Amino acid sequence: MVSKNCYDVTTWPVGNPYEDVGEVINAIIADIKSRQTATDVNEGGKPGAVIYIPPGDYHLRTQVVIDISYLRIEGSGHGFTSSSIRYNVPKNEWADLHELWPGGSRILVDIPIKGDADESKGAAFYIERTGSPRISSVEFSNFCIDGLHFNPDGSGIHPENSYRNGKTGIYVASANDSFRVTGMGLVYLEHGLTVYHADALSIHDNFIAECGNCIELRGWGQASKITDNLIGAGFNGHSISAQNHGGLLITANNVFPRGASSVELDGVTRSSITNNRLHSFYPGMVALKANCSENLVAANHFLRDHEPWEPFLGIDNGMDDPYGLLRVSGESNSVIGNHFSAVIDSQRISPPGATPVIMRLVSGSGNYVANNHVVAVDVRARTSDSCFSAQVDALLTTTGSGQLAVTTVLVEAASSRNTVLDSGDDAQVVMDRAANAFRPTPSISTSHATVP
Amino acid sequence: MVSKNCYDVTTWPVGNPYEDVGEVINAIIADIKSRQTATDVNEGGKPGAVIYIPPGDYHLRTQVVIDISYLRIEGSGHGFTSSSIRYNVPKNEWADLHELWPGGSRILVDIPIKGDADESKGAAFYIERTGSPRISSVEFSNFCIDGLHFNPDGSGIHPENSYRNGKTGIYVASANDSFRVTGMGLVYLEHGLTVYHADALSIHDNFIAECGNCIELRGWGQASKITDNLIGAGFNGHSISAQNHGGLLITANNVFPRGASSVELDGVTRSSITNNRLHSFYPGMVALKANCSENLVAANHFLRDHEPWEPFLGIDNGMDDPYGLLRVSGESNSVIGNHFSAVIDSQRISPPGATPVIMRLVSGSGNYVANNHVVAVDVRARTSDSCFSAQVDALLTTTGSGQLAVTTVLVEAASSRNTVLDSGDDAQVVMDRAANAFRPTPSISTSHATVP
Amino acid sequence: MVSKNCYDVTTWPVGNPYEDVGEVINAIIADIKSRQTATDVNEGGKPGAVIYIPPGDYHLRTQVVIDISYLRIEGSGHGFTSSSIRYNVPKNEWADLHELWPGGSRILVDIPIKGDADESKGAAFYIERTGSPRISSVEFSNFCIDGLHFNPDGSGIHPENSYRNGKTGIYVASANDSFRVTGMGLVYLEHGLTVYHADALSIHDNFIAECGNCIELRGWGQASKITDNLIGAGFNGHSISAQNHGGLLITANNVFPRGASSVELDGVTRSSITNNRLHSFYPGMVALKANCSENLVAANHFLRDHEPWEPFLGIDNGMDDPYGLLRVSGESNSVIGNHFSAVIDSQRISPPGATPVIMRLVSGSGNYVANNHVVAVDVRARTSDSCFSAQVDALLTTTGSGQLAVTTVLVEAASSRNTVLDSGDDAQVVMDRAANAFRPTPSISTSHATVP
Repeated sequence: MVSKNCYDVTTWPVGNPYEDVGEVINAIIADIKSRQTATDVNEGGKPGAVIYIPPGDYHLRTQVVIDISYLRIEGSGHGFTSSSIRYNVPKNEWADLHELWPGGSRILVDIPIKGDADESKGAAFYIERTGSPRISSVEFSNFCIDGLHFNPDGSGIHPENSYRNGKTGIYVASANDSFRVTGMGLVYLEHGLTVYHADALSIHDNFIAECGNCIELRGWGQASKITDNLIGAGFNGHSISAQNHGGLLITANNVFPRGASSVELDGVTRSSITNNRLHSFYPGMVALKANCSENLVAANHFLRDHEPWEPFLGIDNGMDDPYGLLRVSGESNSVIGNHFSAVIDSQRISPPGATPVIMRLVSGSGNYVANNHVVAVDVRARTSDSCFSAQVDALLTTTGSGQLAVTTVLVEAASSRNTVLDSGDDAQVVMDRAANAFRPTPSISTSHATVP
Repeated sequence: MVSKNCYDVTTWPVGNPYEDVGEVINAIIADIKSRQTATDVNEGGKPGAVIYIPPGDYHLRTQVVIDISYLRIEGSGHGFTSSSIRYNVPKNEWADLHELWPGGSRILVDIPIKGDADESKGAAFYIERTGSPRISSVEFSNFCIDGLHFNPDGSGIHPENSYRNGKTGIYVASANDSFRVTGMGLVYLEHGLTVYHADALSIHDNFIAECGNCIELRGWGQASKITDNLIGAGFNGHSISAQNHGGLLITANNVFPRGASSVELDGVTRSSITNNRLHSFYPGMVALKANCSENLVAANHFLRDHEPWEPFLGIDNGMDDPYGLLRVSGESNSVIGNHFSAVIDSQRISPPGATPVIMRLVSGSGNYVANNHVVAVDVRARTSDSCFSAQVDALLTTTGSGQLAVTTVLVEAASSRNTVLDSGDDAQVVMDRAANAFRPTPSISTSHATVP
Repeated sequence: MVSKNCYDVTTWPVGNPYEDVGEVINAIIADIKSRQTATDVNEGGKPGAVIYIPPGDYHLRTQVVIDISYLRIEGSGHGFTSSSIRYNVPKNEWADLHELWPGGSRILVDIPIKGDADESKGAAFYIERTGSPRISSVEFSNFCIDGLHFNPDGSGIHPENSYRNGKTGIYVASANDSFRVTGMGLVYLEHGLTVYHADALSIHDNFIAECGNCIELRGWGQASKITDNLIGAGFNGHSISAQNHGGLLITANNVFPRGASSVELDGVTRSSITNNRLHSFYPGMVALKANCSENLVAANHFLRDHEPWEPFLGIDNGMDDPYGLLRVSGESNSVIGNHFSAVIDSQRISPPGATPVIMRLVSGSGNYVANNHVVAVDVRARTSDSCFSAQVDALLTTTGSGQLAVTTVLVEAASSRNTVLDSGDDAQVVMDRAANAFRPTPSISTSHATVP
């Protein structure tokens, strides 16, 4: 390629990309900036560049710092594989494994982490620019960022299962516009993708799993989308979280365990969680916190069952069964047309004897909960030392020892003037019926009466 | 790359791509055609080609004319930035801006426009082929088409805010099959993407904003999809519009203001508007016109609030508040499970004293409106000279001076035999109850009675 | 490109890619493996590679066998065109056609097929690896796999309309993780994409049509997604099918005729079919078979009308009208907020005089069917020898000779304890009301009574 705006990390003369691709990319960015001398004459001047990362293993020992718009970094392979499964294979079997590590166009994050450092210091890619306009249209596409190892965290679990290492894949520190993250594979990072102050951000068709936290939209932001991703955080982190966003669209994601939460929103308004498939081993799958208002939670499939894989038995997110699979604090949200499956071993309910809660309205008023179908099954939980077969087996297990009694909707006293329709029968919906509107799902006997 | 079917505009010997990339691409197309001499022997012959546009600024002074199938034009950066914000920054502050223009692989549309010319003359990319088969599998991917400026339109507003310049990004004039538009950035064009007679068209994951109109499917067509895009038209145009389409799927889009409409369908049947996030500053957000029938509008989030940005204060789409946020003319449509937020300053309702309407059925019969949640809040509108902070601020504003009285569903006398369920209480639904079926959303008092 | 991990089939020294691209790709894979000598030292070693297929016609006479992770095969054009339309154009008009064949980066599958061979022998790309870990992150992107011809199948129809040729595009035989199939065009294959034992598979934004079967997930699997595709199988095959999957997300697809089924699930649990546009010429559009449980079918648009194109008149999938457009065998599924259009010629109902069924619950219990809108129109079917205009014409036809009487929900005696809400009036829902819960959609007269 003759254009000077196309770079390849393996051919750039500065540095050694296999030893420190961070040094190489920073040198390329410096070169791009040195050539951006045009003062926007003739309606142009700073078009940016593309940096290509061929398939290969590239250690990153120097943080990449991006402060120019229109930079696209792309590879030819998202390269995900499960490091978690490998680390939980006995080490004397490793020699028999076809490969040990993720692959594709792979960045190995080897940044030295200091325990007390600013969290952003551990990011492989750090984006910040002050002044105006906001940095725009930085794109990450189709490569792998691998944090390599997790560290002991004092909990006594296998160090590689801690989901702690102080590393972040991509960290955007300042207000930004029209960023795009597509086709990436992020693995074994404490934070996969952390973005402050996003406008019109697109996070689409990525594979972000086995990270402490996967996607975190922080500070505030608007009009963004998190769509069509495969996502699964560690037991102590968030798969998708957002603070103070408006007009966020979270859709078509397949979010798998573990994840302390599948989706956690904090002060988020007028946003959508629709049409996702959500799976968790704990309560608190979707949490709308801190006055989340006027959001739509619709057409999602929620599944909560038990941890089937031995290395993580006994670990959870600390929430007990009455916490709610969906928990809402705030005004005027809509919860419409969702399916909830709670596949629970009644012997393992926490606290013992409690009734699990599916949807819990904690505070706020004017929420509209309609046409949600709750299925609760009492199943003897089984476990295995094989992650994949255990999960598939659990997923496909449909015969239990019977129905499980649950509260489908619980409205706390601090929440009122809500409307609950066809989301549970009279016994399953617990709330002050003088303070909230209610129509129970017709039962066989009551429905009989409605037929003339 | 050794294959003759891979072209790069910066290395092609004809023309200067920086001065007129249109001339270069047309020369490349001529070369492709000159090599397509095989008469489809041995089951092959005309595979097409890819034309690569590296990151850079490329003026286009000659319209590109495409009349061959299987042509892919791709860049390495969608390059969107807000030109609208920049043009509304005082010019004496421009020197402090990091950059003035969009970037990435950027086409600068410099076609001379004659006021009275056929609209298609202003298109950067013009596709037409007569005869059989229909032209197939033309692909546009990951580059930027920038219309540069808007022009005075006599309205007295800032010329760069007029959304008029006679320019179109991509214009498909004849029947086509299996086209694909992905990852593009279209900005400051009067028409972004205009496609006649589409079959199995995919418009996916693009950023099409600050265009007079963004996506227009004209004539007729079928079985296409508009999915996962970030879209926002000018105040006087359509974000998404379609005529006489069947089986169109509009989903997972985040459509932001301004846009005279977010989605406007005309004679469209058996299509879906589902699972989108839609935001507008005016009524008429989604309009089903001219006998649209058997369509599904479901699981969408509608937000209508007020213009917060000073340069556009006082501008609207001419519709008043009773017009309806969703307006339906036609038979047998389904409106199910949508959330509507109307965040309106009661002092600014038009005409003064009117009751805003959320869903309005204008004509036709047999429409099914169920389980829609309407939230209407009376909020003192605030404005700012900063577009981003004003919008975020408005989006996150949740405390108003109280509830706003609205008509959630209004059925005109010309429309009958509709069914309206759980989409408003008795006072909020205005229609002839002898001509339409109705079940009010239970209120606290009425629901009480339903509990045995 | 200097990296040894980037290959181009047109520049590799072994074989002739135009004569047998299979031989070339196998030689490249052998080269990759010969270079993977590192024993995963320094946390790396087997990153994989990308193989590029430029636009062009490449015969494949040797099956490609993939047994390494992190291999990406990519082209620059999905190249779909309708071979079906072309084959049904009179041969004396072929000289007038612009082109006869699909294009883009096109693989012509020329593998010799033996009638009695193992089905997998006819696959262009065959993936299998035993041992651990499962093969991961193989990616197929943006090229065309063309099966060229269908063969006589003894049915007496035009041989090229048989949808039988023993060829498969991509066949994954062993357990796999994080595979990705994106932007592909598959055409005229008996099986487009067949994957056994998938985990976290992504099939996204492809064009898979005019194949006997399009997407088949076999054996078992979990946590995968089939999203945003254009799909349409032959009359005797499945557009999307899956066996024993858990947590499968099927969303945002536009599935067009013919297809014996649009979506067929067998033993699938806790999965979603949401937000798709589905169109068929026969009953049995969506079938949940063999104890499918706890699945969500929501916000889909179903259209069933008649075959309008002459070459396929009289062909169907063998199901008669009472079979159901949606047919459910299993426990605790949710069917919420779907639109169904049945546009049927009452003179062509099979068997004559039968009442068509829209949703049919065959076995199992605890299913929840709510807020589905059924539109049934009696339309005189019209046909044409032009596929496109016939289909568009049929799609846009909205005026019939009147309403058609249908059973919106039929619950067989073998299925009980289901809940059916607002999905048909008392006459339209056929079931044992003592064994199932029911609330009829309010009619004009009954709804009157609910208003105080």
